[in-house]
Amino acid sequence: MKLKDSGEFNFINRISRAVKLSNRVIKGIGDDAAVLGYTKDKYLLFTTDMLVEGKHFYKSDKAELVGKKAISCNISDIAAMGGVPKFAVISVGLPGSLDLKYADGLYKGIKKAADGFGVDLVGGDTVGSKKIVINIALTGEVENKNLTLRSGAKENDAIFITGYIGGSIKLKHLNFTPRLKEARYLVKNFKINSMIDVSDGLLADLGHILKESGKGAIIYERAVPISKNASNFNSAVRDGEDFELIFTLTESSADRLKKIWPFKTKISEIGRICSSRKGFFLVRKNGKSEKIKPAGFTHF
Amino acid sequence: MKLKDSGEFNFINRISRAVKLSNRVIKGIGDDAAVLGYTKDKYLLFTTDMLVEGKHFYKSDKAELVGKKAISCNISDIAAMGGVPKFAVISVGLPGSLDLKYADGLYKGIKKAADGFGVDLVGGDTVGSKKIVINIALTGEVENKNLTLRSGAKENDAIFITGYIGGSIKLKHLNFTPRLKEARYLVKNFKINSMIDVSDGLLADLGHILKESGKGAIIYERAVPISKNASNFNSAVRDGEDFELIFTLTESSADRLKKIWPFKTKISEIGRICSSRKGFFLVRKNGKSEKIKPAGFTHF
Repeated sequence: MKLKDSGEFNFINRISRAVKLSNRVIKGIGDDAAVLGYTKDKYLLFTTDMLVEGKHFYKSDKAELVGKKAISCNISDIAAMGGVPKFAVISVGLPGSLDLKYADGLYKGIKKAADGFGVDLVGGDTVGSKKIVINIALTGEVENKNLTLRSGAKENDAIFITGYIGGSIKLKHLNFTPRLKEARYLVKNFKINSMIDVSDGLLADLGHILKESGKGAIIYERAVPISKNASNFNSAVRDGEDFELIFTLTESSADRLKKIWPFKTKISEIGRICSSRKGFFLVRKNGKSEKIKPAGFTHF
Repeated sequence: MKLKDSGEFNFINRISRAVKLSNRVIKGIGDDAAVLGYTKDKYLLFTTDMLVEGKHFYKSDKAELVGKKAISCNISDIAAMGGVPKFAVISVGLPGSLDLKYADGLYKGIKKAADGFGVDLVGGDTVGSKKIVINIALTGEVENKNLTLRSGAKENDAIFITGYIGGSIKLKHLNFTPRLKEARYLVKNFKINSMIDVSDGLLADLGHILKESGKGAIIYERAVPISKNASNFNSAVRDGEDFELIFTLTESSADRLKKIWPFKTKISEIGRICSSRKGFFLVRKNGKSEKIKPAGFTHF
């Protein structure tokens, strides 16, 4: 059987089912980053992302933006754990026919974003490849008390999202700012029960929180902030690569959050966590409810 | 200008020239792994390697061996720093047309090697790609006193190599055992002044030690252990992917080492470190000396 015919084949999830882990692994595969025992009051975070030409970007895209994206996805993962990014190693596969200027552009984009977020570029690997491939692995750190997993959503939690979603294909998927300062503010000033970044799409990623937390949710179409670049609501909540944050916290914390939120970045309360028995529902603008099946992203 | 026409283009080395690093970075780009501040008595090590189908392996190669190689290269890097490998994240780019069995074989090979060396597989990324690409990033730890860099070779050090070199293309490049137990024994029982693993070839990698240490060397053809798979001496010392260790230590330590070496793995004393002014020389079996220009490996 071919991968493309095997439904939602996911190499990494397949690994996670079979692997025995040492007791230093607090959280392995299945969150935005791995969580590892580290010092007395901090965890080590560890994540990796691969971008492939023709899948995640095109050669016609500006090299600096491709480089920026390559590291920003990883920073977004660390942010979604409540942590601070620290050290990155970069592997690049490049065709011999590639223009030196393009390679330099990639590097400039990576460096600028790394500098902007305090990430040290400490190592890497250069290899020849027919198509451009960029893989960045990033470590981060998080104070034990600020660690925020997908699995912590509680019944009656308010569900929030940063920014606007949908239409990222028009540019934002390449040129976004990871919500690091927002995430750090949230975990330092509130008890955030669960958090994830939107890479597979709002419904799919909220679905990850619900699955890991064993909960359901109800969300309101009228409350979901749709980008002006999105063609419509239904695609906006399924498109991926928004790199916004979805997070949940108690209703009383939510009220305080709305009062004191200090950033220009919009935050929107889009729904409530409920029991898994109730399920995952969307309330349309006309008041009707629809059951949501969070369609998984297919890589092949 | 194209990459292939720009001489020895190396994306990662290019980065290393421009990057400012925080003071937690003990050693950034330019050794087998990055060395980062960690606990009071340990450093964190961090390395990454990318394997691309058609460059580092072929689809006709056994999937399990390709998976084994993908993680073993990284373990070899950590070993060459004197450290112990700990946590790995895996990115795989796979074609939709790939047989599920092949993907499972890759995974089995990775897992078996990870288990064998006590490495936890803690995260990853699955993406679609025309050619198979595997990137593994690995962290490790090393006691401060056991950290072994490329840059520490001293004049009159004896130069050693483990195992046999050359002809790895016939199988060993896919099916090798990283010299982790040997490296750990060396750093715990001797003052190893410098160490590197042989990925670019004996001459090129010894050349890295010389460059980083500001030294020269003399090596003896008669003392270099050539694999029976190698076609001849000249190619054996230039071929890459032997994944043996080159290390240097004082002459008196070398005498003790030869007496008490406890492993089956062969070790050979192949020459001496000298001043950089003297240069890098090979003494042929007939007694004649040749100056060596360690040809860099070209990726494109």
